[in-house]
Amino acid sequence: MTQSPAWELSPDRFFDPDPTVRQLARELYEPASRLPLVCPHGHVDPRLLSDPAYAFGSPVDLLIIPDHYVFRMLYSQGVPLEDLGVPRLDGAPVESDHRRIWQRFAEKFHLFQGTPTGTWLAHELYELFGVRRKLTALSAQAIYDQIAGCLSQPEYRPRALYERFNIETLCTTDAAWDNLEHHTAARQSGFDGRLLPTFRPDGVVNLDDPAWRRNLSALEAASGIAIHDYKAFIAALEQRRQFFKQMGAVATDHAALTPCTGRLSDAEASALFEKALRGQATADDAARFTAHMLMEMARMSIEDGLVMQLHPGSLRNHNPSLFANFGPDKGADIPVQTEYTRNLKPLLDAYGAHPSFRLVLFTLDESAYSRERAPLAGHYPALRLGPPWWFFDSLNGMRRYFDRVVETAGIYNTAGFNDDTRAFCSIPARHDVWRRASANWLAGLVARHILDLDDAHQAMHALAYGLAKEVYRL
Amino acid sequence: MTQSPAWELSPDRFFDPDPTVRQLARELYEPASRLPLVCPHGHVDPRLLSDPAYAFGSPVDLLIIPDHYVFRMLYSQGVPLEDLGVPRLDGAPVESDHRRIWQRFAEKFHLFQGTPTGTWLAHELYELFGVRRKLTALSAQAIYDQIAGCLSQPEYRPRALYERFNIETLCTTDAAWDNLEHHTAARQSGFDGRLLPTFRPDGVVNLDDPAWRRNLSALEAASGIAIHDYKAFIAALEQRRQFFKQMGAVATDHAALTPCTGRLSDAEASALFEKALRGQATADDAARFTAHMLMEMARMSIEDGLVMQLHPGSLRNHNPSLFANFGPDKGADIPVQTEYTRNLKPLLDAYGAHPSFRLVLFTLDESAYSRERAPLAGHYPALRLGPPWWFFDSLNGMRRYFDRVVETAGIYNTAGFNDDTRAFCSIPARHDVWRRASANWLAGLVARHILDLDDAHQAMHALAYGLAKEVYRL
Amino acid sequence: MTQSPAWELSPDRFFDPDPTVRQLARELYEPASRLPLVCPHGHVDPRLLSDPAYAFGSPVDLLIIPDHYVFRMLYSQGVPLEDLGVPRLDGAPVESDHRRIWQRFAEKFHLFQGTPTGTWLAHELYELFGVRRKLTALSAQAIYDQIAGCLSQPEYRPRALYERFNIETLCTTDAAWDNLEHHTAARQSGFDGRLLPTFRPDGVVNLDDPAWRRNLSALEAASGIAIHDYKAFIAALEQRRQFFKQMGAVATDHAALTPCTGRLSDAEASALFEKALRGQATADDAARFTAHMLMEMARMSIEDGLVMQLHPGSLRNHNPSLFANFGPDKGADIPVQTEYTRNLKPLLDAYGAHPSFRLVLFTLDESAYSRERAPLAGHYPALRLGPPWWFFDSLNGMRRYFDRVVETAGIYNTAGFNDDTRAFCSIPARHDVWRRASANWLAGLVARHILDLDDAHQAMHALAYGLAKEVYRL
Repeated sequence: MTQSPAWELSPDRFFDPDPTVRQLARELYEPASRLPLVCPHGHVDPRLLSDPAYAFGSPVDLLIIPDHYVFRMLYSQGVPLEDLGVPRLDGAPVESDHRRIWQRFAEKFHLFQGTPTGTWLAHELYELFGVRRKLTALSAQAIYDQIAGCLSQPEYRPRALYERFNIETLCTTDAAWDNLEHHTAARQSGFDGRLLPTFRPDGVVNLDDPAWRRNLSALEAASGIAIHDYKAFIAALEQRRQFFKQMGAVATDHAALTPCTGRLSDAEASALFEKALRGQATADDAARFTAHMLMEMARMSIEDGLVMQLHPGSLRNHNPSLFANFGPDKGADIPVQTEYTRNLKPLLDAYGAHPSFRLVLFTLDESAYSRERAPLAGHYPALRLGPPWWFFDSLNGMRRYFDRVVETAGIYNTAGFNDDTRAFCSIPARHDVWRRASANWLAGLVARHILDLDDAHQAMHALAYGLAKEVYRL
Repeated sequence: MTQSPAWELSPDRFFDPDPTVRQLARELYEPASRLPLVCPHGHVDPRLLSDPAYAFGSPVDLLIIPDHYVFRMLYSQGVPLEDLGVPRLDGAPVESDHRRIWQRFAEKFHLFQGTPTGTWLAHELYELFGVRRKLTALSAQAIYDQIAGCLSQPEYRPRALYERFNIETLCTTDAAWDNLEHHTAARQSGFDGRLLPTFRPDGVVNLDDPAWRRNLSALEAASGIAIHDYKAFIAALEQRRQFFKQMGAVATDHAALTPCTGRLSDAEASALFEKALRGQATADDAARFTAHMLMEMARMSIEDGLVMQLHPGSLRNHNPSLFANFGPDKGADIPVQTEYTRNLKPLLDAYGAHPSFRLVLFTLDESAYSRERAPLAGHYPALRLGPPWWFFDSLNGMRRYFDRVVETAGIYNTAGFNDDTRAFCSIPARHDVWRRASANWLAGLVARHILDLDDAHQAMHALAYGLAKEVYRL
Repeated sequence: MTQSPAWELSPDRFFDPDPTVRQLARELYEPASRLPLVCPHGHVDPRLLSDPAYAFGSPVDLLIIPDHYVFRMLYSQGVPLEDLGVPRLDGAPVESDHRRIWQRFAEKFHLFQGTPTGTWLAHELYELFGVRRKLTALSAQAIYDQIAGCLSQPEYRPRALYERFNIETLCTTDAAWDNLEHHTAARQSGFDGRLLPTFRPDGVVNLDDPAWRRNLSALEAASGIAIHDYKAFIAALEQRRQFFKQMGAVATDHAALTPCTGRLSDAEASALFEKALRGQATADDAARFTAHMLMEMARMSIEDGLVMQLHPGSLRNHNPSLFANFGPDKGADIPVQTEYTRNLKPLLDAYGAHPSFRLVLFTLDESAYSRERAPLAGHYPALRLGPPWWFFDSLNGMRRYFDRVVETAGIYNTAGFNDDTRAFCSIPARHDVWRRASANWLAGLVARHILDLDDAHQAMHALAYGLAKEVYRL
């Protein structure tokens, strides 16, 4: 087989080419690169760490089939998900030859040029699997062999990688009715990393969730509380929050189409909830109930100290035929414009200055960065801005974030970084992009005499490590 | 006459001053600068090429009177359009001394500092007409003479320039009822360039077009189909698409205030159409009909293979007194905020993954770049993002486009460049700006070790040439 | 006391590190740095200049208590306003030990890293007060002493600083019913600077202003016109505009939640006004009346030649408990999305091309820069774009402004700079940031061969000085 070109990752990658900035960026990055990884928000399956013998399967099982960042791009260029081995809901056959899938992927690898997915994959190939040839159609099978060889070794089990990655804390995201058995199992089996759950009640809070009734039953079962009315519903949620907290949770997480907030009277909330129990809640009812429940969740956060996270603005499952055939989380969630100033007012009126409340706010609408989010975070004591999220977890996304947020909100009203990933092996790559982007941004401030180098080192430590710990009370 | 300063265009123009980036940009630009120009979307009058003897007239006929980019800026600083020789609809006299117009223009040439119009004019003066003195009040008449001298020569006839410009394909934009006589005449007269029509049915699709009834009659005449009902209307459009396709068309083009899409039942569509025939259609009826017709146009595109282009978001003729006196396209079209995620959902639900469908989507609302457009294009196989349009066909516009689009959509879900111009002589300048901006952007990625130089050369070729051909099936 | 580090401000601050750009930026900045300051829009209290003996009080009286830019950031990190000496409306005690307040501020000074507030404070400390040690917890008291020492000297009285700052014209902002006694007193006491009032009628134009009735009485008293109906209201406003104009005013200023404009019939306007007199105007009535009054103000501007300024898009007093305890202007005004294309259409239809009308338009919504504002300003003769406002009066804010506005609107449809500040001592710092940002931006254009150095010098003079004078007819 003809060889593909030799390949290496530059230690200066992502830094500005200007020699002054680059030298300063190196200097700021180097100590930060050795700090442990704090991961306060993500979607890693806790089973990876509960079972000491968990193995990732083939390179395709690891890098392609579960990663919607990867397969959405191939799909966008006409590759059916079936050809990539993504399982169909109806069980109809899909490509099962992982070498063929890998070959297809390698042939289309140019699609990822200039994308964060391409950057993360390059980091994993180079740093984790030691690949030193460029991934091309020619080198695909040899690289497959190399990765597969790694994955068969005990050093590539998740627990070993947790150590190798220098992870300090890893928070998962778990349904409100989850019994957290894998978190328990991890501890009982002697895993000594810090694996913490996060309380996510969307499936019972959003009355229009197709699985609402089933989720509610699961919540009843988990809490042991019969949920016949709104009051019992609130009691069950409070009970589950206590359980999560006992299991180490430091935060809750909430997704909503909009960040609309607004308290209902107890009577209104009860009536809406009962309407939903009768299967009669309208879309408007659901929106009003979600807005109310965000108020309730803030109230509970003040009482139990869990940090509240809000991720609004994604219109999920935009492609109905893909959803019907493959289910959710297949790369078809598309952002919508999102308003914060008016939507959050009721919540901030009530709790925005409460010393026990903390809200970490994310967005998929960058036009709100400088217009609404930075002014809000630069005023309300309870509010912190989450890092660039999802499509914006990227070099340019980070640059725009620093550019548009910090002048108004300051560095210390942000929440540091979180990787928000299901892809365990991409965690170091994602933190590395953030740390390099932070170092490069700070280097630019130093080179422009806006910040001195001492302050830049302090800010670098905060962005890479300190803020995530402080904001999430870790 | 006192001389104005000597003047030259730098071969390094528009490249970053950083020496590493500049050197890489040169290296990437150089081979791309020699590629033929592919022009899949534009507004050049086909008469320029149908008549071998077509001449441009005076420098003012060429560069000022027909160019709303130029005269809108002068108008914004208080120069009446009458003083620039722009004809009034009522035939009232306007300035006819082209030397005086040119003098006024030269005296105000500083208004174009830092604008793309200034950049294109500089390119034309320098590269096409060989001007080597800065255009000022002092040099104005001498430069007028120099341009006029050029324009009197056969080498400055459009067909000669088509060769000199190295144009490979030039697509015009033509009303659905156009008989394409100039395209026919061009071929019959021995023009061997590739001059292709594009099917634009806005004038009959938008029921609120003031000329709708007249346009419909023209469509009847052109198609030979009596349009007494909706069904006949659809038949006439299908027939005209066939005719355009036979004449070489590869695409259709659609302008709409919003990209709202949504299928009506045949009964609803028929009823609306008949209401319009009775002169009773409301603004809301017109909006619903346009949304429906975009669905129909997509359906027809799947059947006949014409690529569908959608240009939404311009509120036309914002200045009513200017419109009354001078007509449309006088620099008073102002963008409005434009929503894509929800508006395009019906169309993408129906056709977004159809292997025969291709939609090239433009925008005048950059806030949707990273929020809606890149996520949509990074998912739907049928969707490609058009290049920065109109006000954003500029150095910074291109930089923002690359910055905000590529990380999520990738390079290969874009559509390369098109110049979208009426100004034939500005075509090389516009492509040159794109090629330089692309080279400079890619050079930045290489200098930051995000892309290697081989991949950058490949991407450069795609952006400068390959993507336009592939996307428009040329 | 252990010393904090030595500290100096670089003469190259804010310039790009690239040596070519930096050298050009220096060259462009240097002559501009010596130009007088033209301040056509701001909020300095005229008492500072009417009383020759006016003194600023303590460093905390000068730099912290009155500056919502400063205390909002401290508040956002949990410092109660009471601890910063900000007076409560109920007169309850607040911190009165200014040394303790200063110490708290110094301990939190890192919050201002990378913010314009930090930049302005650094400029004031260094250039005005001669501080040469970094402000830290350690150096706080010594620096307090140093500033207090300065402030006790006659050279630090406002009139002396007016000279030292090289201010040419300083416009204040004054309620429509203000009798301008301090402006009169300034002149009569021999102040020979140019201190001009600006006419701001918001408090009587916005029917939903809580103090509307009281403001109206004040307007009656000031004008000597009994305002029993709409006609008298208009007459009183016209009379006050004449008075302001006699007192040297060159402009009016208008704040509104939206830039909605639209003329009512006299009958409608009269009916709304009488409804308001009866205390029955709704929120919708108020919005319609404001939209109408913007038309009327434009009409009056054409008649009396006062330049009209419009500052839309701030949702004032977002934090109700802070508002209740401390009143308005406490850092809790949050921007909202703002639409210009449709909202301004009635006003521009009527007056947008009138040779006597001039409208300077501001925004807190940067997404409208390239989409709506630059295309409007690049067309309508009456329209000029105000400089980056409020949160965007910053290095990045200016960079984004130049980036997104100039290509479409040109340099000469902008309005130069204004500092919009209450903080008299920050005026030089703010102009210096603008001049450095302008020089750096122009240097980048020269380095990229987009502009030649002669044109850049001319543009630099316009941005730093000439445009403000020309646009405000000073």
